[in-house]
Amino acid sequence: GDPLVVAGRRFHSRLLVGTGKYKDFEETAVAIKASGAEIVTVAVRRVNLSDPSKPMLVDYVSPKEYTFLPNTAGCFTAADAVRTLRLAREAGGWDLVKLEVLGDQKSLYPDMVETLQAAGELIKDGFQVMVYCTDDPIMAKRLEDMGCAAIMPLGAPIGSGLGIQNPVNIRLIIEQAKVPVLVDAGVGTASDAAIAMELGCDGVLMNTAIAEAKDPIAMARAMRLAVEAGRLAYLSGRMPKKRYADPSSPLAGLI
Amino acid sequence: GDPLVVAGRRFHSRLLVGTGKYKDFEETAVAIKASGAEIVTVAVRRVNLSDPSKPMLVDYVSPKEYTFLPNTAGCFTAADAVRTLRLAREAGGWDLVKLEVLGDQKSLYPDMVETLQAAGELIKDGFQVMVYCTDDPIMAKRLEDMGCAAIMPLGAPIGSGLGIQNPVNIRLIIEQAKVPVLVDAGVGTASDAAIAMELGCDGVLMNTAIAEAKDPIAMARAMRLAVEAGRLAYLSGRMPKKRYADPSSPLAGLI
Amino acid sequence: GDPLVVAGRRFHSRLLVGTGKYKDFEETAVAIKASGAEIVTVAVRRVNLSDPSKPMLVDYVSPKEYTFLPNTAGCFTAADAVRTLRLAREAGGWDLVKLEVLGDQKSLYPDMVETLQAAGELIKDGFQVMVYCTDDPIMAKRLEDMGCAAIMPLGAPIGSGLGIQNPVNIRLIIEQAKVPVLVDAGVGTASDAAIAMELGCDGVLMNTAIAEAKDPIAMARAMRLAVEAGRLAYLSGRMPKKRYADPSSPLAGLI
Amino acid sequence: GDPLVVAGRRFHSRLLVGTGKYKDFEETAVAIKASGAEIVTVAVRRVNLSDPSKPMLVDYVSPKEYTFLPNTAGCFTAADAVRTLRLAREAGGWDLVKLEVLGDQKSLYPDMVETLQAAGELIKDGFQVMVYCTDDPIMAKRLEDMGCAAIMPLGAPIGSGLGIQNPVNIRLIIEQAKVPVLVDAGVGTASDAAIAMELGCDGVLMNTAIAEAKDPIAMARAMRLAVEAGRLAYLSGRMPKKRYADPSSPLAGLI
Repeated sequence: GDPLVVAGRRFHSRLLVGTGKYKDFEETAVAIKASGAEIVTVAVRRVNLSDPSKPMLVDYVSPKEYTFLPNTAGCFTAADAVRTLRLAREAGGWDLVKLEVLGDQKSLYPDMVETLQAAGELIKDGFQVMVYCTDDPIMAKRLEDMGCAAIMPLGAPIGSGLGIQNPVNIRLIIEQAKVPVLVDAGVGTASDAAIAMELGCDGVLMNTAIAEAKDPIAMARAMRLAVEAGRLAYLSGRMPKKRYADPSSPLAGLI
Repeated sequence: GDPLVVAGRRFHSRLLVGTGKYKDFEETAVAIKASGAEIVTVAVRRVNLSDPSKPMLVDYVSPKEYTFLPNTAGCFTAADAVRTLRLAREAGGWDLVKLEVLGDQKSLYPDMVETLQAAGELIKDGFQVMVYCTDDPIMAKRLEDMGCAAIMPLGAPIGSGLGIQNPVNIRLIIEQAKVPVLVDAGVGTASDAAIAMELGCDGVLMNTAIAEAKDPIAMARAMRLAVEAGRLAYLSGRMPKKRYADPSSPLAGLI
Repeated sequence: GDPLVVAGRRFHSRLLVGTGKYKDFEETAVAIKASGAEIVTVAVRRVNLSDPSKPMLVDYVSPKEYTFLPNTAGCFTAADAVRTLRLAREAGGWDLVKLEVLGDQKSLYPDMVETLQAAGELIKDGFQVMVYCTDDPIMAKRLEDMGCAAIMPLGAPIGSGLGIQNPVNIRLIIEQAKVPVLVDAGVGTASDAAIAMELGCDGVLMNTAIAEAKDPIAMARAMRLAVEAGRLAYLSGRMPKKRYADPSSPLAGLI
Repeated sequence: GDPLVVAGRRFHSRLLVGTGKYKDFEETAVAIKASGAEIVTVAVRRVNLSDPSKPMLVDYVSPKEYTFLPNTAGCFTAADAVRTLRLAREAGGWDLVKLEVLGDQKSLYPDMVETLQAAGELIKDGFQVMVYCTDDPIMAKRLEDMGCAAIMPLGAPIGSGLGIQNPVNIRLIIEQAKVPVLVDAGVGTASDAAIAMELGCDGVLMNTAIAEAKDPIAMARAMRLAVEAGRLAYLSGRMPKKRYADPSSPLAGLI
C-alpha cells in the first residue's frame, strides 16, 4: 500500500541493510531475514566472488531472494569507484548500484567532488546510481539534477551510531527532492531510525547498528519495527508540539 | 516471553493508552484496538457511569477485553483523589488505579506533596497504586518505598508532545526501581516512545499523541510498533556510540 | 544599573561561587576574585571555624569583602540542616543562608520532603532562606509561598557539568516566581552559564565548573563574562529563530 | 596575548560582524563599536560606493578604524563572485576578502562547486580568501589545501538564529585545520557564540543576531562578552562531564 520505488522497482520494506561486520555468514543471513530488508548492500571490493574454497555470501543470502546493491566501500577516487562498479556489472549484471567515494579514513565522509564526477560517469554509462553524500542540500540537488536514482545523505559518520546530527539539513533535502531520500550512516538504535522516517525519509540504510548490537538478530527486528513505526507516524500527521499544557501562555521562543 | 508485570498481573503490551480527546467512542475503540494496548486509563470524573441515555465508553471498549485503570484526572488535592478512587472501587470494583494529583492548571504537573499523602492513604486502603509523578528520583524512591505498584514519571507536560525532556532523571529512576517504571505524559510521536523504552522504561502511557494525530488509527499502530521496537532495541544491547569512524582519534568530551 | 536583589540586599554580580574543591585557599581566593562574585557559599560542616593551627578560609577570602552564604552541604535530614544553620548563625551571625537537604549520595539530588520541612522551620526562626531544589515548578511555588528568599533549582546533578537538562522546567519556574531564581548545580562550561541567564534566571551558582577546570582562574573569568553575556542577551531580546532563510516555507514542527 | 591571526594580520577581537539589516548607519556604527569587532564585512553589491547624495557606510564606520572585509553576498555563480571582488579591489584596494557563492535563495547555503572554482581563481589572482562553506570536513580540507586564508563553515542557515546544528562537523574541521576556522552564520544569541568558541573555533562572524535583536547595541555587547567567555573557557580546559555525582555508577552510554 505504501511501496518504496527506486529506479522503477517497488519494495515493501524501507529498511536497507549492509552485509559486513557480522560474526559469520550464518548470522548475516538470519539478521537480514529478521530485518525484513529486501535490498542488501555488498561491498564489491570485499566480497569473495571467485574463490570457491572460501565461504561465499551468496550461499547464505540469495540474490534471488534479495536485491543486491553493489557499493564502492573502500574507494577514495572517482576512477576507483567507477572501475569497481563496472566490474560488478560485468560479474553480476547489476546496474542498480550504490556509489560512495570516501574522502578520509578517519571520518569516512564522502568526497563530494569525486562523488559528482563518478556519478556523472556512471549515469552516462547507464547505471542507476543511489549516491552516498553529505547532508548538503545544494549538493543533493546537483546529484538529483544529474540523474541519480536516490539521494543517500549521511546522518552521522559511518559506524558512529550517533543518530541524525542535522535534521534541518535532512529535511531541506527531502522537501526539494523528487527522487527517494534515504538516510545512510549514523543510525545507532531504533529511535534513530524512527526519527529518520518521521523527518520524511523514504528509507534508511544501516549496517553497524545491527551487526554490532549485542544481539544482532533482535536488533534487526527492532529496526524493522522502528522503520515501520516512523513511516506510519510520518504519514499519520503527528500532534503539534505545545509549549504548555495551557496554550494561552506560550513559552515563547524557548522550544 | 517478555511480559510487563504490574501488581502481579501480566500483560503482553507495554503501551498503555488513555480514552479521552477522541472524536467519538467509535474512534476511541478502533484506535485502542490498533494500539494493541491491554490497559486503558479512564478519568473517573469525566466518564459517564450512570446516565443510560448518553453513550457509554464501556459499550465500545469492553472492560472484559481491557484492563480499566481508573485515574484521578482533574483532582487537585489528595482528598479529592482519594474520594474519587473510592467511588470508582465501589462502582466497578477496581483496585488497580492510577493516581494523579495536579498542582497547576497551566502545566498539569503533579503536586508531589498531595500525591504522597494520597498514595499513603490509598495504599493503606488496599489499592494498588500506579502513580503519576515528577521525574525526581528521590520522590520516586519515596513512592516505591511506600508501596506504590508502579512509578509513572512525566516525560514532559501532559499534552505537550515534547518528548522526554530529561533522560538523565528517567534513567536514574529506572536504575533504582524494583517496581515498573512507565513514562506518562509528554510523548508526541513514535520515536519519543521508542526513546522511552530504550532508556529502560517498562512501559509508556499516552493519550494525546494518538488522539490528536491527524490519523489517530494509523498513529496508534505506529505507537504499538515503536514501543515494541524500543523494547527490543533496549534488550538487544545497542552498539556503543563512537566519536569518530576511527576510534584512535577521540573527539574528547564533545559528544 | 541591573542589580540582583536577594532578601533586600543588592549585588552587582549575578555569579555566586562555592569555595570547595580548590587546590588550596590561595587558589580559592584568586579564582573567586577573578569570577567577580560577591556572594560565596561555604559548607558549614566542612569549614574549619575553630582550629587556629590549621589554615582558615576567612584568612584568604574575607567576610568583609564577600557576602558569606553558609550552606548545609552534607546534611541528609531537615533536623541536621536546621541544626547546622543555627550553629552558623550563632558562630557568625549569618541569617542569609543556603539550604540544601540531600536525598541520595549518588545523585546528590535534594530530598524535597525534608527540604520543605527545614525551610518552614528556618523561616519561622527568622532565617532568609535561599533553597536548593529540584526543577519541579509546583515545588518551587510551594517554597516561594512559604517565604523563601530565592529559589535555586538544579540544572543537572551537582558536579556533573552536564548543563541545564530541562530548560522547560527552569523557564516555568522563572515565569511564576516573584523572588529571584538562580540555577544551582550542573553548569560545566561558559555557555551553560550563558544559557541559564538567557532563560531569564536571576543568577547562577557554581563551584566544580571553576574549581575543576584545568585553569580555574581563567575559567572563573570565563564564567564572569558568560553570566554577563547571558544576562545582556536576555535583556536585549534575541532575534526570533527562523526555520528557513526564506520564512515563506516553514519547516513545520521540525525545530 | 591571544591574537587571531588571519592572512598574517593580527586582531585582538575574535568577533567579526556584518553591516547589514540595521535601522540606519548610525545604529550600525554604534553596534559595531559595542561589539568590539575589528573586522567588518561589507556586501560589495549592496554598498553605495559612488552616489554622494546618499549616505555612505564609510562616513559612519571608518575603514581607517576597522578592517573592511568585502563579501560577495548575492552572488550565485563563481563568475559573479570573482567579478565582484575584482571590482572591490579596484575600488578600495582590498585583497583580504570573504567569498560566498550561494546555491539557493531559500536556504542561502553555499554552492560548493562554484565556491571551489571561485576560490581557485581568486587565489591565483592574489586574493586572500576567507571562504563561507558548508560544514563538510572534506570540502573544508580542499579549500585549505587550495590556499584559502580562513575556513568559515556555516553553523546554521544564514539569518536563522538556530545555533550550531552539527558540532561534530565543526569539531572535525577544527581538528584538521591549520588556518583559522570561523563559524559564519547561524548564531542567534550569546550562548551560541560561546559554544562556537568552546568547540575551538578561532572566531565567529554574525550579523542578524545583533542587528535584529530588540536592542542591537546591548546584544552587540553581549556577543563581545560571549566570544571572550567561550574563548577563555576553551583555553581553560573545562571539567569533564560526569554521568553521576558518584562516578562509580556510570550512566553508561546515556549521555
